[in-house]
Amino acid sequence: MGRWEPDAAGRLREAALELFGERGFEQTTVAEIAARAGLTERTFFRHFADKREVLFRGSEGLRDTLAAAIDDAPAAASSLEAVTAALNAAGAVFNREFARRRQAVILSNPELQERELIKLAYLTEVLADALRRRGIRDAAARLAGETGMALFRITFERWVADLAERPWTEHLHETLAELDELLLAAPRA
Amino acid sequence: MGRWEPDAAGRLREAALELFGERGFEQTTVAEIAARAGLTERTFFRHFADKREVLFRGSEGLRDTLAAAIDDAPAAASSLEAVTAALNAAGAVFNREFARRRQAVILSNPELQERELIKLAYLTEVLADALRRRGIRDAAARLAGETGMALFRITFERWVADLAERPWTEHLHETLAELDELLLAAPRA
Repeated sequence: MGRWEPDAAGRLREAALELFGERGFEQTTVAEIAARAGLTERTFFRHFADKREVLFRGSEGLRDTLAAAIDDAPAAASSLEAVTAALNAAGAVFNREFARRRQAVILSNPELQERELIKLAYLTEVLADALRRRGIRDAAARLAGETGMALFRITFERWVADLAERPWTEHLHETLAELDELLLAAPRA
Repeated sequence: MGRWEPDAAGRLREAALELFGERGFEQTTVAEIAARAGLTERTFFRHFADKREVLFRGSEGLRDTLAAAIDDAPAAASSLEAVTAALNAAGAVFNREFARRRQAVILSNPELQERELIKLAYLTEVLADALRRRGIRDAAARLAGETGMALFRITFERWVADLAERPWTEHLHETLAELDELLLAAPRA
């Protein structure tokens, strides 16, 4: 796959992000992405099914990272410890500059926002499934999965927006502490 | 609107749910829904933009219920107390039998599932916006909104699936207690 073009996928991704930023996602064609990258359309389609996949290709990797981290968590780890390990593992594979540019494109297009929602809903299931494999009962696994993805969304937003470039783990830790505080003020009736 | 046909909207909704359940959402036409309800297509379109709207019409009401409950929460209430009041107010307007039938239709169709995800993402924003109106800072409002919708999803699932028909408030209370427990086991490093 693309062996004659070193890092063709990376060059196509960079070209696509540039063009999506300059012209908008809808206004950009695959032909333009390939031309900007100095490659052919045929090479583009060897790497991506369509221009949207340039933005969503990472989903499978993210899924595997999350699931593996939960599988690898010590048996004694609580659900939330396992989920936190998964979120930290996810953060370790993200590139903030790419994430930032990708996020800007996603937020500019309702169709991409929908696709992103579907991706995140799917990842919620991935977390819950991995917890079930640890013997967590279904209802608790679902709750921990939903809570994990709420933490993920907020951490991701803060980390992407953070001009001080503080690391993912700090943002996750703070979000977790705030969630804890939120719950401390919960109704106890 | 529909003044010659008492409760035309209710009859159309009932007919649509029956047909969606019998034939599937995609296989059901507006003409069939109107015929089953003993009404005309024209009457259908006076009440609903399309057959999908039969399932999503309630979203605006739900939005208003959530927002009003947060607005009406005592000034001293914490974010989570306000959100819990909103979730209880939402539960009070749901009809379990309708919710159950609607949920079965939604789960049978990917396009409807996507629409439902979009609705829930929107309601997350509604919660966060209402909290901002109470002077909660943006980051905390977003977290409380996400947490609130995680609670909503889990409570809703359990309440719909509960053959013992225990009330919404009990399910919400339990889900909240479990979230609390989940957080107690959180990493504190």
